Amino acid sequence: MAGFHLNLSLMTPGHFRHAWRAEGADPLAYLDIDYFQRLARIAEAAKIDAVFLGDGPALRGEIEEAPGTGLDPLILLGNLAAVTERLGVVITASTTYNSPYNLARRFQALDHVTKGRAAVNIVTTATPAAAANFGATDHPDKATRYRRAWEFLDIVIKLWDSWEPDWLIADKRSGRYADPARIHRIDHDGEFFSVAGPLPVAPGPQGRPVIVQAGGSEGGLRLAGDFAEVVFTVAQTCGKAVDFRSEVRRRAVAAGRRPDDVKISLGVVVLVEATEEQARRRERELYAQLPIERLTAALLANLGLAPGSFGPDDEISAADLPEDLPAEAFSTGFGISLRALLAEGPRTARELIQRGAGGAGHRLLVGTPQQVADDLEAWFQASAADGFTVMPAETAIDLENFATLVVPILQQRGLFQREYSAPTLRERLGLPHPHRLRAADAPARDRPSATLAPPPVPTLP
Amino acid sequence: MAGFHLNLSLMTPGHFRHAWRAEGADPLAYLDIDYFQRLARIAEAAKIDAVFLGDGPALRGEIEEAPGTGLDPLILLGNLAAVTERLGVVITASTTYNSPYNLARRFQALDHVTKGRAAVNIVTTATPAAAANFGATDHPDKATRYRRAWEFLDIVIKLWDSWEPDWLIADKRSGRYADPARIHRIDHDGEFFSVAGPLPVAPGPQGRPVIVQAGGSEGGLRLAGDFAEVVFTVAQTCGKAVDFRSEVRRRAVAAGRRPDDVKISLGVVVLVEATEEQARRRERELYAQLPIERLTAALLANLGLAPGSFGPDDEISAADLPEDLPAEAFSTGFGISLRALLAEGPRTARELIQRGAGGAGHRLLVGTPQQVADDLEAWFQASAADGFTVMPAETAIDLENFATLVVPILQQRGLFQREYSAPTLRERLGLPHPHRLRAADAPARDRPSATLAPPPVPTLP
Repeated sequence: MAGFHLNLSLMTPGHFRHAWRAEGADPLAYLDIDYFQRLARIAEAAKIDAVFLGDGPALRGEIEEAPGTGLDPLILLGNLAAVTERLGVVITASTTYNSPYNLARRFQALDHVTKGRAAVNIVTTATPAAAANFGATDHPDKATRYRRAWEFLDIVIKLWDSWEPDWLIADKRSGRYADPARIHRIDHDGEFFSVAGPLPVAPGPQGRPVIVQAGGSEGGLRLAGDFAEVVFTVAQTCGKAVDFRSEVRRRAVAAGRRPDDVKISLGVVVLVEATEEQARRRERELYAQLPIERLTAALLANLGLAPGSFGPDDEISAADLPEDLPAEAFSTGFGISLRALLAEGPRTARELIQRGAGGAGHRLLVGTPQQVADDLEAWFQASAADGFTVMPAETAIDLENFATLVVPILQQRGLFQREYSAPTLRERLGLPHPHRLRAADAPARDRPSATLAPPPVPTLP
Repeated sequence: MAGFHLNLSLMTPGHFRHAWRAEGADPLAYLDIDYFQRLARIAEAAKIDAVFLGDGPALRGEIEEAPGTGLDPLILLGNLAAVTERLGVVITASTTYNSPYNLARRFQALDHVTKGRAAVNIVTTATPAAAANFGATDHPDKATRYRRAWEFLDIVIKLWDSWEPDWLIADKRSGRYADPARIHRIDHDGEFFSVAGPLPVAPGPQGRPVIVQAGGSEGGLRLAGDFAEVVFTVAQTCGKAVDFRSEVRRRAVAAGRRPDDVKISLGVVVLVEATEEQARRRERELYAQLPIERLTAALLANLGLAPGSFGPDDEISAADLPEDLPAEAFSTGFGISLRALLAEGPRTARELIQRGAGGAGHRLLVGTPQQVADDLEAWFQASAADGFTVMPAETAIDLENFATLVVPILQQRGLFQREYSAPTLRERLGLPHPHRLRAADAPARDRPSATLAPPPVPTLP
């Protein structure tokens, strides 16, 4: 069976943001490079495919009660890649608040210096706080952000492809170094950007860094189908995950790609201990730290419910929800995931928050190494995902517990790799090298219309 | 005696761009991280203060005959910092083609992950080729670029200072993590930028990464006096270097700083061999590779002379030069430096090019370790500089020769450090920690006027 990829989130103190209050936890760990280097080495020893950090370029409001956004992930994960040999790095970058030339050039450089382990997780950044750091008077709406993201990625790929493989001459006698006929301007002139190109240097080992993306909205799905090679997603129910994976693969085929050219990595928050009793005890401690009133208010807003309409222990049912998701308040993927859970039956706000790992939104998985491995295997066998983005509940504890207790079980079952099979992340994920994609018969991408209307989707055979 | 700092350029294949043609040279070394890591370790073993890379975000026209711009220096030097312990990294970044929030955040992150070894070399980027990669229809003129750079640095510093030192509460019982009253928005709203702030995390070990800058124009000098902590400069004659250093120190005092709060690092291209004969032989080989016709044409343009008005072996005298430097064609610093050389007597274009290391512009110093050390000592004793940015003629040879043959002589003479005296680059350079600069009695910077008229300069006592 192909696949079963593992990506580990380094979010610190953990996907329970209040885990800094745990006994023995270092409240400044999220600024400590020695701590992160130790985590990266643990991940590499377990043959984890890649480590990952989410990001948004602004201070989060929760700083009074927990560490928020951390160090710039390009810098932090660049450092971790330098002290490891094979571990991939998945680095979040905003298409709304970067320029395509700088981003393309930096990730290309990272691909060179990591010898083919760079991946970029493209996000459009949904917070007005970020907009205010970049001179934007109005935060652009979601459709505009995704249209910009599409053009951004189109440019980035053209820049990565701006040098042909056989550009080098290096004839010392004649003094001809490079063949300018093999190095191409891109001369992009679009709605948001004008970029001449080419990049200053040739591509790195992966040809293109791996493109990762998340987002369940129409704009997000369009990006996924056209460009993404790994898609992060959230699901509280296995059926929704299966549906999402099918849909993304269908979109890829509609864009002229093979369904296996895009891998689905499902987020799961993991709390793992040797015994179930220990795991449940730590779960209770984490729940006790949650600022339940504030999280309830945030949940109501995210579900499109009126402030104060439900208390933490009032049951919410599917019938209480407004017909449409709030357009801007929340991630579409998280909204769909919560609604699918409520479709199974009513839940209290507290239950929803707890099941979503204290506000993280992803499914919380608590138990023994055996239980966690069983769960991941079952979802994988159900075709819910090609792998998982494992988000430690308390990073200082659960990352190592997962790597040293759960991964060996997955390896014994023949699900997960025992050794790194290839030097580059792209090869290990089973993704095609861009040289293939650049062949004459490669499909041309169509520019999306201004309204991001979905293209006709053919039925899969 | 204070000072004598050494900064090593990693420009590859060397400041003679045609050094890739040398026997045994690897034409792809400038993309090879193993090669750069080896150089960084050699530099650190010699206790060099920092390594450095110049940059411009565009492909250079010379690609047909030599490698041009290399890998993004933020990524490349970030990697080198991760595999060294004490070596500083001086990373070039453009204020014209970056946003101040991203730049401030990334260098702050770099300061954390390097434990206080980050320095940013601010440039305004003078090429239209770069402009075309960032959607600029017209490359902004020099005065505009420097006005933007001033505002940019003002914002970056405010962002670096946006967290007070005593922000952390970390009371696990009450759950109060940080004191929001110690974390400040900056709410900057200026001619070029609007930035709310604060940064997402607190400052790193240096408080502020070290600010490096170059540029001999009025805008450049204004930046140097107000902000720069290290100023790169070029001089072909010792007298000009002494004058420049005095002028920058005078500007710093005018801005309310101490003269020693800014260090001058003088660029020098070094070709060093055990014997003078060996050195001269290699020099002749490098000269033989120069595309003399093209370099002569570039030199004439840079001096403001008509195309074809002088051949490579025609003498140019000071009287041939137009009264004013060309405003946009060339760096003011390099222009002044060439004019000072011609003021000593006529030279052929070929001599000027050779003396400027084949187009690099900086003074070429060829000789034995003893001769090179004597020269650097003499210029240092003459107060021409606080240290040197050493640019290897052929990096694969001269970086190691300088580190292992010249540095020990400078150490024996008590000029250069035998050990790293402090963990942070800022401390080692003798620069004040920002906490001091933020004291109540610290001078306020005035916003420069739109025309960048120089402020009144007081006479030094």
